[in-house]
Amino acid sequence: MIKMVVNMQSEKVLEANSDFYNAFQNLSIERMEGVWKHDEDIICVHPGWDLFVGWFAIRESWITIFHNIETIKFIITNPKIKIFDEISIVVCIENIEISINQNSVKLGVTATNIFEYSNDIKKWLLIHHHGSSVSNYISPNLSVQ
Amino acid sequence: MIKMVVNMQSEKVLEANSDFYNAFQNLSIERMEGVWKHDEDIICVHPGWDLFVGWFAIRESWITIFHNIETIKFIITNPKIKIFDEISIVVCIENIEISINQNSVKLGVTATNIFEYSNDIKKWLLIHHHGSSVSNYISPNLSVQ
Repeated sequence: MIKMVVNMQSEKVLEANSDFYNAFQNLSIERMEGVWKHDEDIICVHPGWDLFVGWFAIRESWITIFHNIETIKFIITNPKIKIFDEISIVVCIENIEISINQNSVKLGVTATNIFEYSNDIKKWLLIHHHGSSVSNYISPNLSVQ
Repeated sequence: MIKMVVNMQSEKVLEANSDFYNAFQNLSIERMEGVWKHDEDIICVHPGWDLFVGWFAIRESWITIFHNIETIKFIITNPKIKIFDEISIVVCIENIEISINQNSVKLGVTATNIFEYSNDIKKWLLIHHHGSSVSNYISPNLSVQ
């Protein structure tokens, strides 16, 4: 019974993680708004950028990113989940195919995503994203859907 | 009263964070052993490396790192702390001066450090470290002690 509850929680956490990448893939600021906790002390570290603190700054960073990307596709591999009472942590590899200025490149990013459970809306909300480029990245043999 | 308790917890978390960097600065595997939770699902992402999972693999990675460094000095700036019931998160900038093969370089790393509170030993233990290089890093005007 306990195991069932844990599995259900894992599914919910992975769902929140997928919602984040779907928002990114759809370059949708509206979906991104639904994924994050709108708080002043949430943190976002985009690969190679300075860190952003607070929803207002993080939202602006996504607008800038979405403005500069033509298309982006994600395949998430190797997700590792830890769930505590109110916090869950997902570490995963983002296998990315991105088009900028009509050039397509493949790259890998290691991500730490931390979610906080909201009792109000019964949902895991993103409070921390830390992405960093994988050196010597070799794209896995996966077809991007 | 509640604020005092929160402040005391913040101090304990920052102390655990400092213990980690002191272990690193002293290239001490014994101190590193005292900082981490010795668990199979803890995670460590060194800048530009693949991720390591589990204490055994993480310990080996530190031995390799310590073996290849002559000296390393840390100044930790801009720490941001979040504390939950059993989990705390510290995000900080590692301002590093490192000597390898008699060459000294300065570099900046953004780190996400996650600690879990151990009720057994009444101490915050590191369960997750994600470090990534800061692009266009400019060293702050701080003297390394």
